[in-house]
Amino acid sequence: MGLLSDRDDARWMGAALALAERGRGRTAPNPNVGCVIVREGRVVGRGWTQPGGRPHAEAMALAEAGAESRSATLYVTLEPCAHRSERGPACADLIVEAGLARVIAAVEDPDPRTAGGGFEQLRDAGIAVSKGVRESEALRSFAGFIARRRYGRPHGTLKIALSLDGRIALCDGSSRWITGEPARAHAHLERSRHEAILVGRGTWEADAPKLDVRLEGLEDRSPQRVVLTSSPFVSSEVEKRSGAEQSLLDCARSERGWTAIGSPDQIATLPADHLLVEGGAETAAAFLRADLIDRLLLYRAPILIGAGKSAIGDIGLADLAAAHGWWEMVDARQLGSDRLEVYERRR
Amino acid sequence: MGLLSDRDDARWMGAALALAERGRGRTAPNPNVGCVIVREGRVVGRGWTQPGGRPHAEAMALAEAGAESRSATLYVTLEPCAHRSERGPACADLIVEAGLARVIAAVEDPDPRTAGGGFEQLRDAGIAVSKGVRESEALRSFAGFIARRRYGRPHGTLKIALSLDGRIALCDGSSRWITGEPARAHAHLERSRHEAILVGRGTWEADAPKLDVRLEGLEDRSPQRVVLTSSPFVSSEVEKRSGAEQSLLDCARSERGWTAIGSPDQIATLPADHLLVEGGAETAAAFLRADLIDRLLLYRAPILIGAGKSAIGDIGLADLAAAHGWWEMVDARQLGSDRLEVYERRR
Repeated sequence: MGLLSDRDDARWMGAALALAERGRGRTAPNPNVGCVIVREGRVVGRGWTQPGGRPHAEAMALAEAGAESRSATLYVTLEPCAHRSERGPACADLIVEAGLARVIAAVEDPDPRTAGGGFEQLRDAGIAVSKGVRESEALRSFAGFIARRRYGRPHGTLKIALSLDGRIALCDGSSRWITGEPARAHAHLERSRHEAILVGRGTWEADAPKLDVRLEGLEDRSPQRVVLTSSPFVSSEVEKRSGAEQSLLDCARSERGWTAIGSPDQIATLPADHLLVEGGAETAAAFLRADLIDRLLLYRAPILIGAGKSAIGDIGLADLAAAHGWWEMVDARQLGSDRLEVYERRR
Repeated sequence: MGLLSDRDDARWMGAALALAERGRGRTAPNPNVGCVIVREGRVVGRGWTQPGGRPHAEAMALAEAGAESRSATLYVTLEPCAHRSERGPACADLIVEAGLARVIAAVEDPDPRTAGGGFEQLRDAGIAVSKGVRESEALRSFAGFIARRRYGRPHGTLKIALSLDGRIALCDGSSRWITGEPARAHAHLERSRHEAILVGRGTWEADAPKLDVRLEGLEDRSPQRVVLTSSPFVSSEVEKRSGAEQSLLDCARSERGWTAIGSPDQIATLPADHLLVEGGAETAAAFLRADLIDRLLLYRAPILIGAGKSAIGDIGLADLAAAHGWWEMVDARQLGSDRLEVYERRR
């Protein structure tokens, strides 16, 4: 019975984790939480943090469940909040009011205003509480929220589409296409999960990339576009083209929907919890040197390019021993003829 | 019964294929064949082509089985030879003499002196013959023999140990170590399967590599060492070091156990069916440009290097579309924290 129940709990939490993904990239400054309410083996309410952070996932799920919440079990990827705000009631209050029997949470809220207080309030009201179910997956789903809390900056993902020999383009800069359709579609899905997407000045000037989400139904999920303007590695050709009299910052400001930042450190000021860095090599290197990349998204095509543009510029590596131990593979899959590998920074 | 028997045949052929690997890299100009003789579900004889090509696998297995060959089944990765030579009797004759009941072969011998004649001779003697069992694996095991027959040159494998971003060394040339112990041990095992191993002039001068097999019990399997002397990409530093008065060819000849060749095309003259090309980037590119590489052996470490030495130089790629369709992944495995990927050239 205990085992069966644990397995059920893990399964329902999986549904809550899937719902949590719907909000990723749109809930800052709140975390993207998912929630399901289950009564007699049937889902009666589903919720996820809405764009801008409100309503919370629990409030949405409780509203859907209505009277069916009574004596039901609520699965939620983060501890329900215990603090009342001007923007709405505390979720713990709502849960007590609705008369739920059990609350299963993945992670305790790191927000000092809750930090276990939500669980306490629920227990005081006679509700059975468990936490830690699928915790590591939930922590991964909140990576942006956690990076913002812990490091005061967005969670950084570096995306690279490259050949077997580590090239991202031919010498003339052409890179269409290294990877195939399925890999490119996946990369667009990843874009929809980020509030902001960044390229370097060279890529911005050479490609004028749209950086939007070109997937049916997700067009409105295109992230804020950011250009890194001050790279010490910018080519003289680009300098010439942009001209001395008009700074690139002005160019970027005048371009509809672009934000310009002068250094990787300035990303801390972006209203974003998830930043996707898309190239080129010197921009990637600048973010890696500043240790602002938490995740690598490598789409590798089964081709050799030979002479061409390298994926990553100088990251200041002193010796090979220092290169080891930074990255851990957390996911790998085949996408058509290409292979996606996802690595996380060990911290 | 038929199905069971087919499954058994495939299993015993697997044993013959494993024995065939023992000879790989030492049997030129003969193919490395493997053979088992099975009687009443028990192996009574095992053989593989011996160094230099004789005795043949069947002769060795028959010698081991002795009288137990009578009415037994012989599994062999290549059609038994039907031509008598000064170096020994034809295997088909030996099999008929020994009184075997069945012969199961993977591949028909492409040698025009046999080419089905072995099977014919066996059938004429009343022996049941089947062919095509695990044929594609057998063809792969004879890749060197086939490349020599079909293209008049050794089967070429390019081995690269590289980082996620496709670097094979830091800018200063240091490459110890990119990959870990298990990957390096595997690379040494691969060396033992090749008659010849080649590096470029730059690597030869900079590293003076030993290129031997440093695995217990396989020390005597170290391949012939070859240096490619005439690369248009050789660094001026190397030019300076070697000096005008003494050609590198002389250097190589005077070095114990090294052979020097002037261009990738000269490999056709090497007494080898399997050539392992180990670097650097310009040597790899020269062999790829000449389409002399049939197999890629990529050992990829989970590290980023950034600025450093690229894996492969200019292979003369005109556009990205032309890069696709050349390579097919045929094996992938984890070796410690590194990943080995094996690709074969589609022809």
